[in-house]
Parts: sequence; structure tokens; C-alpha cells
Amino acid sequence: MSDAAAFRASILTLYPDMFPGHLGHSLAGKALERGDWSLETVQIREFATDRHRTVDDTPAGGGAGMVLKPDILAKAIDSLGPEDPRPRILMSPRGRPLTQKRVRELACGPGVVIICGRFEGVDQRIIEARDLEEVSIGDYILSGGEPAALIVLDAIVRILPGVMGNEQSGLHESFEGGLLEHPHYTRPQVFEGREIPAVLTSGNHAAIARWRHEEAVKLTRARRPELLAAAEPAEKDKKPR
Amino acid sequence: MSDAAAFRASILTLYPDMFPGHLGHSLAGKALERGDWSLETVQIREFATDRHRTVDDTPAGGGAGMVLKPDILAKAIDSLGPEDPRPRILMSPRGRPLTQKRVRELACGPGVVIICGRFEGVDQRIIEARDLEEVSIGDYILSGGEPAALIVLDAIVRILPGVMGNEQSGLHESFEGGLLEHPHYTRPQVFEGREIPAVLTSGNHAAIARWRHEEAVKLTRARRPELLAAAEPAEKDKKPR
Repeated sequence: MSDAAAFRASILTLYPDMFPGHLGHSLAGKALERGDWSLETVQIREFATDRHRTVDDTPAGGGAGMVLKPDILAKAIDSLGPEDPRPRILMSPRGRPLTQKRVRELACGPGVVIICGRFEGVDQRIIEARDLEEVSIGDYILSGGEPAALIVLDAIVRILPGVMGNEQSGLHESFEGGLLEHPHYTRPQVFEGREIPAVLTSGNHAAIARWRHEEAVKLTRARRPELLAAAEPAEKDKKPR
Repeated sequence: MSDAAAFRASILTLYPDMFPGHLGHSLAGKALERGDWSLETVQIREFATDRHRTVDDTPAGGGAGMVLKPDILAKAIDSLGPEDPRPRILMSPRGRPLTQKRVRELACGPGVVIICGRFEGVDQRIIEARDLEEVSIGDYILSGGEPAALIVLDAIVRILPGVMGNEQSGLHESFEGGLLEHPHYTRPQVFEGREIPAVLTSGNHAAIARWRHEEAVKLTRARRPELLAAAEPAEKDKKPR
């Protein structure tokens, strides 16, 4: 499409070369070439004011690591313009966990500004002064915000209008119903002595749907009981223990 | 180091060009060049047997999407050799959530084999026949397993011996104590009228430690109460509500 309304991502980073990374390939990469979305990187270091181009400093109160300076980050953010309507996300292990619901909301908007932290973190005052939304992609520690930013963009881009080919359209969205997905099978009928469950080749569509739902509940109960508890009451009632 | 004991990652994928992606940059990239770890991609499509190089087929029992065939994936996995001691991970939204504990375990081992799914999923029988460990990086939907595999590797590589420079060494590991991290501050003393909290510049180390702990508990309670419930009793007792 390439119109002015296409989803615009701006990434503030010390490592602009990490982008577009894997998003330059496959469906996301083709969509980027077509202009279905755009990606711009902003090198935070360009907003440093001293001759060493310093972007970080030691933490007030002591401790290991370095903290990104609020004044430099403010200049980098403000360089995007005074009226930028896009949400500003700070990738941070302290953030609220990314959910598919938030991904859908972001994908419906004009785009996103993502600030990638490095070192120990960023100064708390810039989070408050520029209303940054702290988002975490999971409870593990990464080398920086860049890999996490690429995950947020991957999740958004795949659901932008026009991006998914037939390959992906209509995929069961695992988290929409609050259950993990049932197992999948395909040909051959027998693989290393293991057969496809008979119900799946029975042609009985009601039985197939029932089996899939039961397997999804069973798997969710085993691996993610907290999801089962949060799933709609209807999901639990369909198959009581 | 570049010795035979270095951490070895093998990625089974339909998109080998997505690797090393962002892992080719910064500290992970330098460590890769030095041979502190190695990365090999295996193109699953090379193990297809028909002239169309088919790797997937329609799901048994009907439904949208395509399923990766177990026989093709088996050949790709078996090409790594019969006695490969490395854990085999399948990136999947159905998997157990990745934790920093699992990252540490993996980093202590000889390496990892990661299978990247695309389409609707992979045939359940290959998961069982090759003992694949299903791992999820979070409750959102990605374009495929590749972005998730890069996250797993990023988390592992940063804690391999020799990889982290001084820049990152000694970082507070947010999830080790089960609490989200306290806020950080650095110079300037006043930023847009906002001051660094006085306690942090007081020089009173006990008071600083107490303030940081209280802030960590407060933040965790607000954003991730389930983490607070799971944290060691000592963490909760230190600062009762």
C-alpha cells in the first residue's frame, strides 16, 4: 500500500544495525518493502552533548552497571516531533507482560515508538516525564531492549492488514480462547509406528471438535493451570474434570 | 576461546537467513566471532523427498493452516548425528514459559538444538518420538519460531563465560530475587524540575538499600502481584504491608 496511514515504527537504540534483523525476511520483510509498515531507527548517541558522546552515567546511590541519562533520552524522544500520537514503549524486564490483547491494540494504531534500554536501565524521571509504557516480553534477562523490540514488532506486523499471506491467514490464535492449542497431526498416517488418532480421520466433525477441545483443556491444565483458571467459565464448564 | 567445548547452537528452520540476526551484533556478535559460541542453521526443506520439496501438509481432521510433516523433521533432526547430547527445544506457544532458571541450565550445557515451527504447528508424533521440549517465550503470537529462537539464544549467550564485557557484568539480575527492580537515577541532579530522590544522594547505604527494597516490593505488588506471592517468604516479611 505505501500510503501515509501505514503503521510506523521508530526505534530509539544504541544499536541501529540490529534492525530490521529478522523482520527484513519472510512476510514481514516483504511487507516492509511494499510499504505496509515502515521502520526508522534513531541513534540515541547522536543526542549526546559532550565530546565523548556519553549516554550513560553511574547510578545515584551506588551499585553496578550504568544508567541511561534522562536528558539525552529526552532529546532523542523529542526529535520525533512535538505532536507524535504514537504510544512510547520502553522495553524493560520491570514492565507489564506483553499480551496478544496489547499487540492487537497497538496494531490498530498509527504506529509505535520503542525505546531500547541497555546497561542497568534508564533514569526513572524520563519514564515519568515522557509517559513511557514499560513492557516486558517475558521473565528472563536479555542483552538489551533490541531483541525484545523485534519481538513486539514481529507480533504486531503479522496482524497488520495485508501482511499475512494465505500461509498464515485463519490460523487458530492460541490465546484468544485462553487455552493452549490441541495437538496437530498430518500425513503420513503411520510415522515410526505411531498412528494419527483415529478420531481425526473418522470424518465425524463433532467428535473431532470435542476431542480437540478436551486435548486443549488437558494440555492447559498440565502446563499452564493459571490460564485455565483465567479462561472463560464456559471453557471450564465444557469439560469438567 | 574457540575450543571444542564452546556452546553449540543448531537451528532447524525454513528461514536460515534470519540467523544470526541481531545476535551478529554487539557483545553476542563479538563472542560469535571469537568462537565463544557457535551457530549453525539447518534448512528443513533440504530433507524434503518430493520434487516440490514439500515440508508441510493439511491437518488431519481438517482446519486452517498447514502442519510440518513428522518424517521430514525427523530426517532434519537425525542429520545432527545419533548421539547428540544437546537438549532439543521446539519453539511453540503451547510450550512451558521460558524462565531465567532454564536459561541458566541451558547455558551450563554443551549447547542446544532449536526447531522453529511455522504454519499451524508441527506433527505431535515428532514431538514425542524425538523428545522435543516445547518452550514458549510469552503469551503472544509470532510469525514463527525464528524470532523466539533468537530470544532464547540471546538470553543464553549473554551469560556464557567470557561473553559479557564489563559493561554488563555484575548487573542486578531482576528475576533472581523474585522481585521487579527498583527505579534507577543518574545525573543530572535535576531534570526538567524533577530531582533525584534525596535518600539516594544521602550517602546512607543502609537507607539506600532499604529504599530500593521497598520500591521493588511496591512495584512488584502493583505490576506483578503473582511474583510477590511466589517470592521467598523473607522478601515479603522484610516489608509487610
